[in-house]
Amino acid sequence: MTELTNDLFLRACLRQDVERTPVWMMRQAGRYLPEYRATRQGAGGFLNLCKTPELACEVSIQPIDLIGVDAAIMFSDILVVPEAMGMELTFGVGEGPKFPQPIRSRADIEKLPVPDPEDELGYVMATIQLIRKELAGRVPLIGFTGSPWTLATYMVEGGGSKNYSQIKAMMYNDPEALHLLLDKLADAVAAYLNAQIANGVQAVQIFDTWGGILTTRDYREFSLTYMQKIIDKLNREHEGRRVPVILYTKGGMGWLEAIAETGCDVVGLDWSIDIDVARARIGDKVALQGNMDPTMLYANPERIRGEVKDILSRFGHGNGHVFNLGHGITPDVPVAHAKAFIQAVKEESGRYHG
Amino acid sequence: MTELTNDLFLRACLRQDVERTPVWMMRQAGRYLPEYRATRQGAGGFLNLCKTPELACEVSIQPIDLIGVDAAIMFSDILVVPEAMGMELTFGVGEGPKFPQPIRSRADIEKLPVPDPEDELGYVMATIQLIRKELAGRVPLIGFTGSPWTLATYMVEGGGSKNYSQIKAMMYNDPEALHLLLDKLADAVAAYLNAQIANGVQAVQIFDTWGGILTTRDYREFSLTYMQKIIDKLNREHEGRRVPVILYTKGGMGWLEAIAETGCDVVGLDWSIDIDVARARIGDKVALQGNMDPTMLYANPERIRGEVKDILSRFGHGNGHVFNLGHGITPDVPVAHAKAFIQAVKEESGRYHG
Repeated sequence: MTELTNDLFLRACLRQDVERTPVWMMRQAGRYLPEYRATRQGAGGFLNLCKTPELACEVSIQPIDLIGVDAAIMFSDILVVPEAMGMELTFGVGEGPKFPQPIRSRADIEKLPVPDPEDELGYVMATIQLIRKELAGRVPLIGFTGSPWTLATYMVEGGGSKNYSQIKAMMYNDPEALHLLLDKLADAVAAYLNAQIANGVQAVQIFDTWGGILTTRDYREFSLTYMQKIIDKLNREHEGRRVPVILYTKGGMGWLEAIAETGCDVVGLDWSIDIDVARARIGDKVALQGNMDPTMLYANPERIRGEVKDILSRFGHGNGHVFNLGHGITPDVPVAHAKAFIQAVKEESGRYHG
Repeated sequence: MTELTNDLFLRACLRQDVERTPVWMMRQAGRYLPEYRATRQGAGGFLNLCKTPELACEVSIQPIDLIGVDAAIMFSDILVVPEAMGMELTFGVGEGPKFPQPIRSRADIEKLPVPDPEDELGYVMATIQLIRKELAGRVPLIGFTGSPWTLATYMVEGGGSKNYSQIKAMMYNDPEALHLLLDKLADAVAAYLNAQIANGVQAVQIFDTWGGILTTRDYREFSLTYMQKIIDKLNREHEGRRVPVILYTKGGMGWLEAIAETGCDVVGLDWSIDIDVARARIGDKVALQGNMDPTMLYANPERIRGEVKDILSRFGHGNGHVFNLGHGITPDVPVAHAKAFIQAVKEESGRYHG
């Protein structure tokens, strides 16, 4: 076990003192980096990249070396969990993910197994071990999963969706079937995250990408409940340190109080809310992660710095802020702008600490 | 000038007494109706349908006859305004709208004319007159427009967009150019709505479909300001009655108070907020329109009725509720479900009035 050289991210997640605000980016190991595109091309496709630990490790480390972020996130995809449950998964060129045989009935759900993460997802565990070795304590490593609701959406729709007609029809017309699926996914995901922690991730993030398409009542019943169940089952201590849990529901800013009640350590914010408003609502319970509009990286570096300063000043003095984008970095962002963003957070945030 | 047989919608917009809650559906003249699909096919394309007053009138009336809604909305598209400003507009089969020569520079913006709605959009005015004649006072007629921000998004992106990279880059790097465009659009839209009112629409709705992709600050600066400017310029009285203005920002539920301050009569809600919460926040200032999740129409009729009852009871007793979906009805909804929805509102809402 290596001591961390830079543990700002972990301390900020736990609302402990830091010298400056730590920063990373959702999708930081991604297509905006030419080095990522080269490795991915060599891997022969996205899913091969996820399943080859040496290459997944390589792209996970790239943003640490090239951009200077304060945390690594293991390179993978949320949909490897349904794939490990036996669903065929394809990523066509220029297309999103597809499940050619989507879940459409209770019988489909009943025969889904809960996978053993050390076995069916062993390649993720190997990736984690490799990344920890390569990082050698430079920064912490974040693991992640999709939320049960978000995974179920892909599994039932068969891919991305515009109107969510299949999953919503199941939710309204056969809610028990959907609850069975969500419950199974919560078990699978909890086991998966605990395996990630056992193998070396030092924090975990639950991505609830599609929670925001629900009404308040449906969000609580079909998404939040199952994230709560996962959080209750997690091993929150490993290697003598607390393992922070970050919960991020895109489009869920109306429900921050309920999200903060789950027992997570950090609530991820999208950019639709001012961070001072979010801090006033839940900042005495949890840390906040976010929340710069990812499209701000299309702006010139001076404008980016201005926005960083604005968000830092809105959060204000005190602990509990992990700087991030409000959603993933987009593929067409210039690398120089991503670097300018990270540099601005590092240079401008010291005044709010110590 | 014909007396209205059913003016429930207009009274509810103005928070006056009604015997039951009126109901209509965004996109009610649309692809879920076989009769609409037949007329559209005969018209030879979507834009031809918009530009042929007899056919546009026909599809506007269909949901009154077939579904029983309490208001008609003129059939058109928000993008006819940029087209009237000289931008080529195409609707490919199975594709969204496209502007093959999008706006990319201040020079492009400077040369855009503000159209004369009675001339370049004369076919809309002819459609309105025809619909009023065909309705013969059965229900009121709603006119509409896209918000300047929403129109600008399409004009700068050249169509629908995933990341909004072009409009956001313009917003961050050359905000003055974008303000010039938005100001021109506000003038064009205000003149367009006033012409609609002069030709016979009895209420108007501003669709701010993309306001919700902005931060709080940018929403105020780049979207709300220009809707406010339009509202300030509208003729609010015609044919001896007040012409209500409905303002609908999808994804804008965090900003309801600011929206209600614009002087609009009705605030449109999406389904991400409970209507009782919205009423508590702004219901003493404006009427509320909404807010059933449009995907609820994939549910069976009993479930639909249950949801209608829930929303009615959340709004509770008193005036100022126009029942609607939280967004447009989707093309794959069974017609019987749309009918069941309208019927349920009519049957269940009387108990909350009188």
